Amino acid sequence: MLGNFSYCNPTKLYFGDDSLRYLNAELPKYGDNVVLIYGGGSIKKNGIYDEVVQILKDNGKHVAEISGVMPNPTVDKLYEGVDIARRHQADLLLAVGGGSVCDYAKAVSVSVNCADDPWEKYYIRFEEPDCETLPVGCVLTMVGTGSEMNAGAVITNPHTHQKIGHVFADENIMPKFSILNPKYTLTLPREQMIAGIYDIFNHICEQYFSGADDNTSDYLSEGLMRAVIDASRVANQDMQNYEARSNLMWAATWALNTLLSRGKSTDWMVHMLGQSVGAYTNATHGMTLSAVSLPYYRHILPYGVPKFKRFAVNVWGIDPQGKTDEQTALEGLAAMEGWMRELDLVMNLSALGATEDMLDGIADGTIVLPGGYKVLERAEILDILKESFA
Amino acid sequence: MLGNFSYCNPTKLYFGDDSLRYLNAELPKYGDNVVLIYGGGSIKKNGIYDEVVQILKDNGKHVAEISGVMPNPTVDKLYEGVDIARRHQADLLLAVGGGSVCDYAKAVSVSVNCADDPWEKYYIRFEEPDCETLPVGCVLTMVGTGSEMNAGAVITNPHTHQKIGHVFADENIMPKFSILNPKYTLTLPREQMIAGIYDIFNHICEQYFSGADDNTSDYLSEGLMRAVIDASRVANQDMQNYEARSNLMWAATWALNTLLSRGKSTDWMVHMLGQSVGAYTNATHGMTLSAVSLPYYRHILPYGVPKFKRFAVNVWGIDPQGKTDEQTALEGLAAMEGWMRELDLVMNLSALGATEDMLDGIADGTIVLPGGYKVLERAEILDILKESFA
Repeated sequence: MLGNFSYCNPTKLYFGDDSLRYLNAELPKYGDNVVLIYGGGSIKKNGIYDEVVQILKDNGKHVAEISGVMPNPTVDKLYEGVDIARRHQADLLLAVGGGSVCDYAKAVSVSVNCADDPWEKYYIRFEEPDCETLPVGCVLTMVGTGSEMNAGAVITNPHTHQKIGHVFADENIMPKFSILNPKYTLTLPREQMIAGIYDIFNHICEQYFSGADDNTSDYLSEGLMRAVIDASRVANQDMQNYEARSNLMWAATWALNTLLSRGKSTDWMVHMLGQSVGAYTNATHGMTLSAVSLPYYRHILPYGVPKFKRFAVNVWGIDPQGKTDEQTALEGLAAMEGWMRELDLVMNLSALGATEDMLDGIADGTIVLPGGYKVLERAEILDILKESFA
Repeated sequence: MLGNFSYCNPTKLYFGDDSLRYLNAELPKYGDNVVLIYGGGSIKKNGIYDEVVQILKDNGKHVAEISGVMPNPTVDKLYEGVDIARRHQADLLLAVGGGSVCDYAKAVSVSVNCADDPWEKYYIRFEEPDCETLPVGCVLTMVGTGSEMNAGAVITNPHTHQKIGHVFADENIMPKFSILNPKYTLTLPREQMIAGIYDIFNHICEQYFSGADDNTSDYLSEGLMRAVIDASRVANQDMQNYEARSNLMWAATWALNTLLSRGKSTDWMVHMLGQSVGAYTNATHGMTLSAVSLPYYRHILPYGVPKFKRFAVNVWGIDPQGKTDEQTALEGLAAMEGWMRELDLVMNLSALGATEDMLDGIADGTIVLPGGYKVLERAEILDILKESFA
């Protein structure tokens, strides 16, 4: 059944091939000091940087920059950004990039006025901010994480091999606005598109594979999964297909903006396994998820046969006639594997640079969450990781 | 394809069987003068009125009341409420009831500081407010309209036989908060539950049956339609089933809170026909929709065969093998008709008190919108209305 919950998601979204111009509508709402945050410089090559800087200039903003935000933003980079935002007396943090840049901006937002060490406070003790936070705006250039419309921020501590996400409770930590232009995603390398697609799909799975009941969220999840599968097949054949890329962009936002999880338990163990792999290998997030997914789902299937059967029938169109529920469920995972191979997702940890000697560390770094069909023991985590090398 | 759009829906929702207590969290955000708005007094019988008044008292609020808001709120009732809100110098309008009460509160909100006549300005000229509006909060006691999380407000002018909805453009006209307690809906008469269920379903249809492309919105719509169908069958057998009623309540909110229509054209002709019937008969909204739906959909089917086929397959599980697309599409509508009859929905205008001599007036009062598969001529409207008597 639907449990009790609250829902509030005030992020204003501007979607479409002309959406950047709405930055002019948003900037006047904030003070003059803007910190522009971006990654490795691809936005300088494709012209987005110049366009954004021009709009900032037109609006009379005083701009400082944090550049070089890496795909797995580190705690040291966080400290550096907090220092820049403090010295600039930032009124607005403007993230231009993908989920990492947007996550990073939110981590800076909650840390600028935080007297405590943010890593200890937010990522070890999982506390909520008790200081003033800074408004964040986002110009999205990559699709997958949903960071543009949620209050999550993943930070990596390479010294301790920990990659940890904190989903903050307060909706004020969500971006105030996000600009979603599907055209910006057309120039991404194929591997990043594909990794993003699997990230979207797995976000839905993480919220779907838990709970005993069939509720409204599960039906919405199935609809969104079918949207992702169909659009991904078009985009995989034709990366320049604006329609498919725009549908993927929109599906990504709704896959992880808190809607699908309302009133139900959630799993998130593929992300916990994948994040621990990422802390050891620095591999692309979506590929760490794809590499561990099937061993994980086949492992938990016996504990959640009705839902895996439903997944097979409603998402993959498997005909259950004359089959046991478990057979139908397994055929659903086989169909999912077929789709993953069609997209050329990484299906093996060794392809990500992981080696067998990392396994104990990755297992130790995997945070075990209780919301799925089976609370994993350490030996099961090791089995799943070993399967992910097979 | 997904067109360009913006999306922002800041309403804070509290959902569940203990959700009324969150009124204590919201009331301190507003000034002391609250106008409590409700309908025919059922909230006095079931105790909700006493609970709300106690919470208002505990929070030191100064309360005025607008009671007797009717199922189809009239323009005269609107003038009366505006007068009460003005004299009370209202800081907050608190609607306790179903969609009509919530719609009405929004209409008062945009009219209190409006120098112009609100009927003329908002419902004839369809202008947006250029005055300060009042915050609206909502305690929902009936399910269907989605008014708890959108900026729509339908008002009826009985003098001119016009029932007109205005969906305001500014998200600030959406309720600031809405309290959704599925238990409040358990005491509704069966007919109101059933009418609400069809209202939800038709809201999704109105946004689904338009546009040439298959996009993310269509997949979400299909998921939500399946959720409504399945929960309605449970609720129809067992009106006290909290799980089914809570899923219906949650589906209703998402069926009409602006998500499903983003980036696509929409139809809304069943509502235009039904609202005109409502202006003549004062019949229950959901039943006016059910009475005209099948004649309308069978009429437009030839102009939108691919979507009606998709509806048949993805929503009703019709097997398209060995059939023409049109046959499959018609089987989908037949399955929908079977479900409607199972719920005992009104399928005929005469059962709503309409008479053949009203037909010309109802046709004249039907606003023709251009977003569906066929822009209706007056003769077609008359045919559909006549079919709705058959």
